[in-house]
Amino acid sequence: MQQSGALMITTIAFDADDTLWENEHFFKLTEAKFAALLGDYAERDHLLERLLAAERRNLRIFGYGIKGFMLSMVETAIEVTDKRVPASVIETILQTGRAMLDHPVHLLPHVETILPELAQSYRLLLITKGDLFDQERKIALSGLAELFAAIEIVSEKEVPTYQRIFDTHTDSPGKTVMVGNSLRSDVIPAIEAGGWGIFVPHNLNWAVEHATAPDNHARFRQIDTLAALPALIGSLR
Amino acid sequence: MQQSGALMITTIAFDADDTLWENEHFFKLTEAKFAALLGDYAERDHLLERLLAAERRNLRIFGYGIKGFMLSMVETAIEVTDKRVPASVIETILQTGRAMLDHPVHLLPHVETILPELAQSYRLLLITKGDLFDQERKIALSGLAELFAAIEIVSEKEVPTYQRIFDTHTDSPGKTVMVGNSLRSDVIPAIEAGGWGIFVPHNLNWAVEHATAPDNHARFRQIDTLAALPALIGSLR
Repeated sequence: MQQSGALMITTIAFDADDTLWENEHFFKLTEAKFAALLGDYAERDHLLERLLAAERRNLRIFGYGIKGFMLSMVETAIEVTDKRVPASVIETILQTGRAMLDHPVHLLPHVETILPELAQSYRLLLITKGDLFDQERKIALSGLAELFAAIEIVSEKEVPTYQRIFDTHTDSPGKTVMVGNSLRSDVIPAIEAGGWGIFVPHNLNWAVEHATAPDNHARFRQIDTLAALPALIGSLR
Repeated sequence: MQQSGALMITTIAFDADDTLWENEHFFKLTEAKFAALLGDYAERDHLLERLLAAERRNLRIFGYGIKGFMLSMVETAIEVTDKRVPASVIETILQTGRAMLDHPVHLLPHVETILPELAQSYRLLLITKGDLFDQERKIALSGLAELFAAIEIVSEKEVPTYQRIFDTHTDSPGKTVMVGNSLRSDVIPAIEAGGWGIFVPHNLNWAVEHATAPDNHARFRQIDTLAALPALIGSLR
């Protein structure tokens, strides 16, 4: 007979962008506008490839977030047009980026019901990377802030990041799950730090976040939707 | 006879930019290059006035930091030239901004000797506002990180910011001093949160940080240099 005993998991950490609310969606819309604005100079696919290359090389100096993305768009516009892009087009690119910084927060399905339910039995954490100012804006607009015992806005999600947060805010890594849509930033490093990694894929993904699922790991799980999370967590042993 | 007794102050919190290391200096250099680049279109004073106006209105959506400053420079260049600025000039503006993100960390006088000395008798905190990614870079380069019991990178330094940090990391606000070069962001809100505010002016100041000194407040002090800090803190009763 299986022992029921105490709950094994005591802490649930959530990623934010594309786990709790839409994010990549706004980037994709902006990329489409960017490609249309520069349609006279280059093909859409070529433009988006160059933009992604600029984002990748700029990560090291800009970090994550919309302001860095805006700067990468301006840089790419100058580059692909061989410096012929008119200032009026750059102005429109900036306006498009500014609109992203004002975008509304759309919670993903089940977030509004599942999170308050889980908060009654578990310590909830929010672990999100990116621009401090923009992430704080979105957390405030989400209306979810009060549910979290701690909110960590970090510049990069690597194994030491999770080790530090697990040390500070959890009973032990083994009693902690990290839930997110990025294998590279949410799931794999959380597992390597001794926690459980629960992958909830989102239909839109940024190429920079690509990674391969650790299918056979004892502490890896995948679910289609957050609706499946309470039952899954209750079953972890 | 005066009682010596236990130390009254147990925690010393420091601002970072222009308190521990040079910062505004790099902005002023970049502003000079910006004005020179656009010298054909407008007078230096007018350009810098328009740039400051852009920075002020963009704070609400960009927050503090170099990436927002870069975007404000591009925006101002387009605006003051009535959209005639060539893409090559915008490219140079971006390069100038990128150089800021790679600038070396120059510690201010006495920091290297005074901070390790104070760390032996007091709990040290670092409280800095701005871009998460860039502040982390500078903290790492400063070589000072190990001296601090906690490092708080915040999006805005207001009274509730200090209340939260004092609650989390100090014995009590009354046993805590905040040391910084900004009356508006370091000194006044720390005093309003119940702490001591020690003003160490820097010769360069950003207009947005301007405020009037609370001369008559019992918990306000001003010193010319960090060399005076240990004696001042030892004298606070």
